[in-house]
Amino acid sequence: MKERGILIVVSGFSGAGKGTIMKELLKRYDNYALSVSATTRQPREGEADGREYFFKTVQEFEKMIAKEELIEYARYVDNYYGTPRAYVEEKLSAGRDVILEIEIQGALKVKEKFPETVLLFVTPPGAKVLKERLEGRGTEGADVIRSRMARACEEAEGMDRYDYLVINDDLMTCVEEVHQIIRGEHRKSFRNKRLIENIRQELAELNK
Amino acid sequence: MKERGILIVVSGFSGAGKGTIMKELLKRYDNYALSVSATTRQPREGEADGREYFFKTVQEFEKMIAKEELIEYARYVDNYYGTPRAYVEEKLSAGRDVILEIEIQGALKVKEKFPETVLLFVTPPGAKVLKERLEGRGTEGADVIRSRMARACEEAEGMDRYDYLVINDDLMTCVEEVHQIIRGEHRKSFRNKRLIENIRQELAELNK
Repeated sequence: MKERGILIVVSGFSGAGKGTIMKELLKRYDNYALSVSATTRQPREGEADGREYFFKTVQEFEKMIAKEELIEYARYVDNYYGTPRAYVEEKLSAGRDVILEIEIQGALKVKEKFPETVLLFVTPPGAKVLKERLEGRGTEGADVIRSRMARACEEAEGMDRYDYLVINDDLMTCVEEVHQIIRGEHRKSFRNKRLIENIRQELAELNK
Repeated sequence: MKERGILIVVSGFSGAGKGTIMKELLKRYDNYALSVSATTRQPREGEADGREYFFKTVQEFEKMIAKEELIEYARYVDNYYGTPRAYVEEKLSAGRDVILEIEIQGALKVKEKFPETVLLFVTPPGAKVLKERLEGRGTEGADVIRSRMARACEEAEGMDRYDYLVINDDLMTCVEEVHQIIRGEHRKSFRNKRLIENIRQELAELNK
C-alpha cells in the first residue's frame, strides 16, 4: 500500500522566492504536486481551467463553500480564492505530497482543520535582503515596495506559528532543505501508526 | 554564530542495526558526534578511557549522580552506565549533533528533561526480518534469541512515544533518512527563535 502524502502549506514574505523554490522542487522530485486553487476571477490570457486555477462563477463558488468542498477560502477585493478539497484529497491518497501556497490566515485555518499539515515559512536571510530583492525586480514602484515591507512586518508576527522556517539564501540549498523536511516528516511516528501496529502484532505472533 | 547542535536519542530492537547506521552516519557526515558513556564496569581489552567509555569507580560515579553531572543513568547487573552532561554540552555548543544510543526508559527520561531532544526508533521492516537477523548472526543460542524477541515485544509498546520511526531495510537509504530527519529538525521554528527575532527587528527598523 502506498504511503499517504503530506499536505504542506507554504507561506512567506512577498519576494522570499516561494514560487521559484516550489517550481524547482517539482522539477527535481516526483513526489510533489501543487494544489490548484479555485477562483471567481476572470482567466487571464494563457491561463487554462484546471491548470492555473479552477475558474468558477460566484454562484458555483458559494455552493462549494456551502457544501464544505473547500479546505480554506478567502475573499480578496472582489474575488473569491479557495482550495478545493477533492483535488488535494485525490493527490494525497495517491501518495503525492501536496503543496499549497497561501497566506498566514489561511495556513493557520488549514492546520486547525488538519493538524497533520506541515506549515513552512520561507524567508530571505534578513529584512535588508528582502527589501533589496523587491527593489531589484525593478517592476514595482516605491509605494508598492513600502506596502510590501509593511505587510512583511505584520506577517513576521506569525512566523513562529509555522512548523518550519526555511531560509532562502541559496536557492538550491533551500530546495534541498524543503525536501529534507518533507522526507523527515514522513518518518514521524504519528504518520506510521499502521506500521507500528503491524510490527506489534507480528512480534506478538512470534512470541506465542 | 554557530547554530547549536541537536541531541538525538536512538533506540531500537536488538538486531535492528543501530550501531551500523550510526557508524555510517558519522563516516559520511561531519556534523555528528557520538556521546561517550560513563561506566563502572572494567575496561575490556582494546577499550580506551574517553573513547569507548569514561571508566569510573563506583565512588566517582555516585558522586557524578549526586552532582547531577549525568543526563541519565541506569544500573545493569552490577554496573552503572550513564551519559555525562559536560561532554554532550560541549559538543552541542560546538554545533555538533550528538547521538546517544540508549534504551527506552533512558530515552524518555532525557526527553522529559530536555524536550528539544529528538527521539529516533530504529526498526527492521518487520518482526520476521528481526528474528532472521538475530538468527543469522549465528553467534547467539536459541535462548538468547528468544529472550531478545520477548524484549522486542515489550519495547514495541513504547515505539509511538518516539518522534520518528526509521525503518532499516536498506542501510544506505536508512542512513540518508536519519540525516534528512536531523537536517529537517534544524529548520524547526522553535529552534530558530533568534533568527525570527532578528528579522522582526530588522523589518521594524526598515519600516520606521
